[in-house]
Amino acid sequence: MWGGRFEAETDPRVHALNASIPFDRRLVREDLEGSLAHATMLGETGIIAPEDAEAIIAGLKALLADAEAGRLSFRLEDEDIHMNLERLLLERIGPVGGKLHTARSRNDQVALDLHLFVRRQAEAVVEKIRTLQRALLHQAEAHVETILPGYTHLKRAQPVSLAHHLLAYVWMLERDVRRFRAAQTAADVSPLGAGALAGTTHPIDPHRTAALLGLAGIYPNSIDAVSDRDFALDFLYAASMLMMHLSRLGEEIVLWASDEFGFVELPDAFATGSSIMPQKKNPDVFELTRAKSGRVFGHLFALLTVLKGLPLAYNKDLQEDKEGLFDTVDTVHRVLDVLAPAVETLRFRSEAMLRAVRESYANATELADYLVRKGVPFRDAHAAAGRLVRLAADRGVPLEGLPLEDFKAVSPLIGPDVYTVLDPVEAVRRRTSPGGTGFDEVRRQLAQARQAVDGPAPGAFPAGAPVADGR
Amino acid sequence: MWGGRFEAETDPRVHALNASIPFDRRLVREDLEGSLAHATMLGETGIIAPEDAEAIIAGLKALLADAEAGRLSFRLEDEDIHMNLERLLLERIGPVGGKLHTARSRNDQVALDLHLFVRRQAEAVVEKIRTLQRALLHQAEAHVETILPGYTHLKRAQPVSLAHHLLAYVWMLERDVRRFRAAQTAADVSPLGAGALAGTTHPIDPHRTAALLGLAGIYPNSIDAVSDRDFALDFLYAASMLMMHLSRLGEEIVLWASDEFGFVELPDAFATGSSIMPQKKNPDVFELTRAKSGRVFGHLFALLTVLKGLPLAYNKDLQEDKEGLFDTVDTVHRVLDVLAPAVETLRFRSEAMLRAVRESYANATELADYLVRKGVPFRDAHAAAGRLVRLAADRGVPLEGLPLEDFKAVSPLIGPDVYTVLDPVEAVRRRTSPGGTGFDEVRRQLAQARQAVDGPAPGAFPAGAPVADGR
Amino acid sequence: MWGGRFEAETDPRVHALNASIPFDRRLVREDLEGSLAHATMLGETGIIAPEDAEAIIAGLKALLADAEAGRLSFRLEDEDIHMNLERLLLERIGPVGGKLHTARSRNDQVALDLHLFVRRQAEAVVEKIRTLQRALLHQAEAHVETILPGYTHLKRAQPVSLAHHLLAYVWMLERDVRRFRAAQTAADVSPLGAGALAGTTHPIDPHRTAALLGLAGIYPNSIDAVSDRDFALDFLYAASMLMMHLSRLGEEIVLWASDEFGFVELPDAFATGSSIMPQKKNPDVFELTRAKSGRVFGHLFALLTVLKGLPLAYNKDLQEDKEGLFDTVDTVHRVLDVLAPAVETLRFRSEAMLRAVRESYANATELADYLVRKGVPFRDAHAAAGRLVRLAADRGVPLEGLPLEDFKAVSPLIGPDVYTVLDPVEAVRRRTSPGGTGFDEVRRQLAQARQAVDGPAPGAFPAGAPVADGR
Amino acid sequence: MWGGRFEAETDPRVHALNASIPFDRRLVREDLEGSLAHATMLGETGIIAPEDAEAIIAGLKALLADAEAGRLSFRLEDEDIHMNLERLLLERIGPVGGKLHTARSRNDQVALDLHLFVRRQAEAVVEKIRTLQRALLHQAEAHVETILPGYTHLKRAQPVSLAHHLLAYVWMLERDVRRFRAAQTAADVSPLGAGALAGTTHPIDPHRTAALLGLAGIYPNSIDAVSDRDFALDFLYAASMLMMHLSRLGEEIVLWASDEFGFVELPDAFATGSSIMPQKKNPDVFELTRAKSGRVFGHLFALLTVLKGLPLAYNKDLQEDKEGLFDTVDTVHRVLDVLAPAVETLRFRSEAMLRAVRESYANATELADYLVRKGVPFRDAHAAAGRLVRLAADRGVPLEGLPLEDFKAVSPLIGPDVYTVLDPVEAVRRRTSPGGTGFDEVRRQLAQARQAVDGPAPGAFPAGAPVADGR
Repeated sequence: MWGGRFEAETDPRVHALNASIPFDRRLVREDLEGSLAHATMLGETGIIAPEDAEAIIAGLKALLADAEAGRLSFRLEDEDIHMNLERLLLERIGPVGGKLHTARSRNDQVALDLHLFVRRQAEAVVEKIRTLQRALLHQAEAHVETILPGYTHLKRAQPVSLAHHLLAYVWMLERDVRRFRAAQTAADVSPLGAGALAGTTHPIDPHRTAALLGLAGIYPNSIDAVSDRDFALDFLYAASMLMMHLSRLGEEIVLWASDEFGFVELPDAFATGSSIMPQKKNPDVFELTRAKSGRVFGHLFALLTVLKGLPLAYNKDLQEDKEGLFDTVDTVHRVLDVLAPAVETLRFRSEAMLRAVRESYANATELADYLVRKGVPFRDAHAAAGRLVRLAADRGVPLEGLPLEDFKAVSPLIGPDVYTVLDPVEAVRRRTSPGGTGFDEVRRQLAQARQAVDGPAPGAFPAGAPVADGR
Repeated sequence: MWGGRFEAETDPRVHALNASIPFDRRLVREDLEGSLAHATMLGETGIIAPEDAEAIIAGLKALLADAEAGRLSFRLEDEDIHMNLERLLLERIGPVGGKLHTARSRNDQVALDLHLFVRRQAEAVVEKIRTLQRALLHQAEAHVETILPGYTHLKRAQPVSLAHHLLAYVWMLERDVRRFRAAQTAADVSPLGAGALAGTTHPIDPHRTAALLGLAGIYPNSIDAVSDRDFALDFLYAASMLMMHLSRLGEEIVLWASDEFGFVELPDAFATGSSIMPQKKNPDVFELTRAKSGRVFGHLFALLTVLKGLPLAYNKDLQEDKEGLFDTVDTVHRVLDVLAPAVETLRFRSEAMLRAVRESYANATELADYLVRKGVPFRDAHAAAGRLVRLAADRGVPLEGLPLEDFKAVSPLIGPDVYTVLDPVEAVRRRTSPGGTGFDEVRRQLAQARQAVDGPAPGAFPAGAPVADGR
Repeated sequence: MWGGRFEAETDPRVHALNASIPFDRRLVREDLEGSLAHATMLGETGIIAPEDAEAIIAGLKALLADAEAGRLSFRLEDEDIHMNLERLLLERIGPVGGKLHTARSRNDQVALDLHLFVRRQAEAVVEKIRTLQRALLHQAEAHVETILPGYTHLKRAQPVSLAHHLLAYVWMLERDVRRFRAAQTAADVSPLGAGALAGTTHPIDPHRTAALLGLAGIYPNSIDAVSDRDFALDFLYAASMLMMHLSRLGEEIVLWASDEFGFVELPDAFATGSSIMPQKKNPDVFELTRAKSGRVFGHLFALLTVLKGLPLAYNKDLQEDKEGLFDTVDTVHRVLDVLAPAVETLRFRSEAMLRAVRESYANATELADYLVRKGVPFRDAHAAAGRLVRLAADRGVPLEGLPLEDFKAVSPLIGPDVYTVLDPVEAVRRRTSPGGTGFDEVRRQLAQARQAVDGPAPGAFPAGAPVADGR
Repeated sequence: MWGGRFEAETDPRVHALNASIPFDRRLVREDLEGSLAHATMLGETGIIAPEDAEAIIAGLKALLADAEAGRLSFRLEDEDIHMNLERLLLERIGPVGGKLHTARSRNDQVALDLHLFVRRQAEAVVEKIRTLQRALLHQAEAHVETILPGYTHLKRAQPVSLAHHLLAYVWMLERDVRRFRAAQTAADVSPLGAGALAGTTHPIDPHRTAALLGLAGIYPNSIDAVSDRDFALDFLYAASMLMMHLSRLGEEIVLWASDEFGFVELPDAFATGSSIMPQKKNPDVFELTRAKSGRVFGHLFALLTVLKGLPLAYNKDLQEDKEGLFDTVDTVHRVLDVLAPAVETLRFRSEAMLRAVRESYANATELADYLVRKGVPFRDAHAAAGRLVRLAADRGVPLEGLPLEDFKAVSPLIGPDVYTVLDPVEAVRRRTSPGGTGFDEVRRQLAQARQAVDGPAPGAFPAGAPVADGR
């Protein structure tokens, strides 16, 4: 391949290590699109003759059609997708195909392919996040007045609306959308024209190539252009955060689907059974959602490690940017594909949730707040409520199961209105503070979330704008 | 502390594990600022009496003054900064201080403190990145026409302008600025009012509290508000990317300072010697810059691991968000503090760089391009240049050391103008493509970089906008 | 410090980055022990005069006494523990102290200190793991016949003995002991004598120094000796695995302490309350145990990153080996310190566990196995049991709540002995396979575990021997 | 597949997420071997009839032959390798095949497969490490008296023997062998008989199954048996350490192959050229060796993350143990396959190395040591040597280029014998300390390393024994 200075053949074991065609064949579309734009620019600027450009463009289009039909065959000896496509083009249109390489190096070419891939995948992932958000919103809309215990330290803390709880995930995902948008923006820059590292002596028009590809601009610096993989890391980071959030959701559904919680019934279509235990209905989907965070974190760390301490400009190390990214893309798609319909079809057991609320002392805070409203300092109110919880727990009754005299014995300020205060539905309703779990507030939040999810095309969001309620 | 339901004392070993005061004391300023805003709002809304609010505010201000003077003393038994400050407030202003806790939980309080800390530190780091960028620009401006070999695979590839090479780092750092801005934006949201997790029954005005703190808005969802640590991860990710970039710079300076490269003379003030080898002048500063990427990556992965699989809402696990973040902040500051003056005072050895260019065959591409311009297909031109490189290498001379007949023997198209083409200074000058290393293009790029660094206040950047040359 | 070749003073910001005394002061004991051995050897071999050696040894012993009494004061300008101690020695005994540095470099000195530290800490951690194992054994011995549901996919699967479940952790910890022993063995080698990297021209006896320090041998290669940090990574890996195991235990106790499971009552001394919710009794200790795995994983990855791509021999990057290691040591100690007594004093709720077994269909496998024993192919038996589970679930009764005719309707082979088979206690008892949950088998296993934990001094274990029951 | 309790079909998207057959098909051999042992034991113990066992064994052997011939075809709907092989067995021998599942669950079956895989791969990797060690030894034996600068901080420090330098890697790899042996030992335990998690009621003989598979023993605890993946992590850790070491070797060869160092000529068969720069000969093999450390670290971190916080016993999360492990195995093989012959055929440029030694002041330590031997205190000797280095550097000559009077002006103790002392060959020869770089000491070390590499079968090493020279 590089002839001239070499006397011996490359050892085949080197190919086994070096060749990227087993995985970078996935970039066939991006590579052809980039070549089409490059050939067009070469023809327009007169760097190559218009008829040569036309021949090349026709050849590339034919290859693109073949690629989409799965008719291209690649060879390991040709090492990577670029050399394979170059060979296929030469086979198809003859020596003129060699002119495509004018004013371009594999260094800027491979960088371009990855930019196009990340930009495309960021868009695709955002769409699937939107679908999952809609599934969550769908459930939330049906469960504004469904009450379950809110947990801290996995102990029942205060009753909350199920819609409110599910909306927490919608907002997490909204931040993930911003991060994928940021990765998309970072990828929206063309490295083409950087050549091997120093630019080129040909009178190229890289802005034109970028425009043909719909990219927002070009790199100001050719050395940076061939050595930058920040955009790939931005994608891996966005995916890591998404998977971290989903691992939390996965954990919760696993908990809720347990016999002990019993808060959710897994739909048969999204549950699995046991080969040995006939009674089992297992939340595999949610366990895998939780577990697959590991591999995505690993891919992020892998690429950071690859880049650590790497001098400029291009180093072969950069070839390690692809497999982890591809696996991340596949993982995220596969998880989102199944999670959206699975969430959509979960059957929440409202009665079990309400029972859990009633069996707990999650209304103890209400009691303390009630005393505060009567003028008792917070710490004293807290202590009084604690004593009453212990009394009720010793008797095996809920707080509202204590007679009024027991309340009064602890604090004479307590009156019969305490029983209304202790009602968990009323407790939820009263949390009217902005962002709180009160039903009306949750309905307001639902509308706000609906707008964020279904509102103006996500591209219109400034990528880093806060996911905040700015009044 | 929690009295009521507990019969036995907490085991002291639990304090040793649980207590966060040894490290969260660092948030004393943020905690007091948050409390000041909260107390103001409580007074304004009438949730507590105006005179109580005034007493609390006066107490908090006195504590803030003491904190700045280093006069506060904390106790391990009081576990965290919040409980310590509550005690100190009570000691100072009496029981009325207890009312500060109204409509607030430690869950939203600690989240707020961290938001304020991240927002402040992101700003501070950006300022220091700017200083480092200016040091790089300062050197770049002095070295537009200094030529060194550009490297790929750490082999001399093509000659480039030193300014061009240094500017690659300026653009990397520009992307880092965007990431810190994104973290800052993510932190620019107030969780206060979320209470323990469900909001509060008090008629609070969380938008007012946010406004008092200069925060852009509030969380739409109280459960999300207390369990979200995305903004801290965004900071850790931004810092990891910064350190990854700096590790590349560190590696390069270590290489350039080696006896073999000899491209740079380390200033005595930023080099170290050896306790055993008197001839040594060591680049410790740049080695540590390279190495310290490890700990920051580690902190990022630590927090991702902490959050993996964590159910909602608050869990004690979240306390692990702080130490890694604090160490990251300190590491980044310490590295940037020394890197900026060290880069500013590096003495580049232009003559050694030029010698390296001349000794290499980095002008072989020029020869191939020359043949392409004469109509030779690229692959053939490449092979011809390769043969000539081998010939020259066998004779131990540079390409321009070959007589014309040797050139002609390989390709009769080569004429005497080849010697101009082979001149490395000319080679650099000719790379006029946008983003390329041509001197005029580098000067244009310098102006562009200067504007990015010194231009409109960085807050005006849309956080995710591409670092691209959009023409 | 390095005088000679330097003209300018070191910039103070370099000290802030470079100086390790703020953290390596922790190695004061190891450094003095190493110096004592070195001085003894120098005197014995005649490299320095016996009286000089004696003076140095006396000075070092005095410093050691001062160190233990906390009377040494270090200076940042002296950069590290080695230079600080050298200064203190010179101050104490005059210029003769300078001879201690003969035939030694900071490179082999700092490596030695870390070897001694890791060896000591591995021993200390193993002792604490033993204490935790004993707490688990203590509980296991009391709960051989306590039955709880064994879980797969967090769904009740088959009833198991609580002792059996707890013993699973004892065996995990047993493997951790092996890993810490492996780290200890890896650290049990002396790098002293390697000098800066190449050995020394002095007629040293490094085997003697090693013997004085109780180390098993010396490095065969001086370059390896100063650049090897494998032993520190072995420790970090052992600690990561330990914390991973403990994170699983932490998760389980958090689950079991939840209101939904209710399998365990946290002792007041090892639980915490809520500042706002008086009813809460929180498992902070177990949450932090779970969470702190993150930081230890992070430290492991940090050091791997530091060493990635580092050329030989010593590089300043290696200074980054310490802080993460120190924090790991502290974390592991703090967690084990509180976990052992917390586990020891957990109160398991046997009745709640048994109720969970009875409410589940965890005996469905028994039914399937019963049918297999009657000659039904496994897959058919499984299907039959599944149908009966569904029937029982529809009626809201346990399997044993179905009348015999329902059993017979599904499979005529079922007789009245099915009710014995379905009894969960009997189900556990019957699992007599080696390693299984049958009570007698668990008792056998308990004895085996007791022997592993309390048996011959752990040093006698070959570090890599399988934790297996070899019959 | 699980029929009974399920009413709806599994959604195909669940298969896409859950099915492991696309990757666990790689365990076909291990799964069949495990089944063969299990069937043999079932027949021997009479749990199934001998003729049934025979039929199953014959069927499994036929499948094994088909598998080796690549004739088996798997189906995605059958989810994993176990269900696929079960189906294929049933297709081949009819319903009797169903009896193979007696007293076995997929939980212990999949754990067994992975144990067998790790055991086998650890052995295979050790063999390839041995080959690489031999390539290093081969070069070392040829270069005992080849001198190059030893580096600290990538600055020339002291001259060393090239053999000595290469041997440092042999010893690192020797520690890697120990770690793979430890992983092999950890995998050398049979989980079979653990069933789903609780053991079985069938009178199995798991020791017999283990013996048939050549495994050293069985798990003492069935719950641990199905949830333990420590042995896979031990393998990933061993591989991470190996790759970390190889990344250092890779970095060094990249440096040495640079035009600036010029210490090594890459063999054409193991170098690559440039598609655009005809003069390039690139060290891709060594760059990829360096870079691929990233992905292996990532896989280690991924599995730690998967296991973090996972309750007992089996969870679907554990399925994530395979792909990262498989990729690690492939990566390590591919790297070692090419590295051994590449190292074997490197051509070291002795003259360039020697020139680098002579051009440096790497003999300054010799001068300081010379003065120490004359009675000058170390610090003063160091300062004197430093002054002479500066003097020589100012004049652009090596130390030995200074006339005697210049030496005497700095220290009158210096005599004409200083020139012998300054000779780098003599300097190396004189470093006779054990482990040092003196030629005779290096020869002794070579014999020791040869014995470690070629000596008694590696299995005879106690896995954790120190790689130390114990005299």
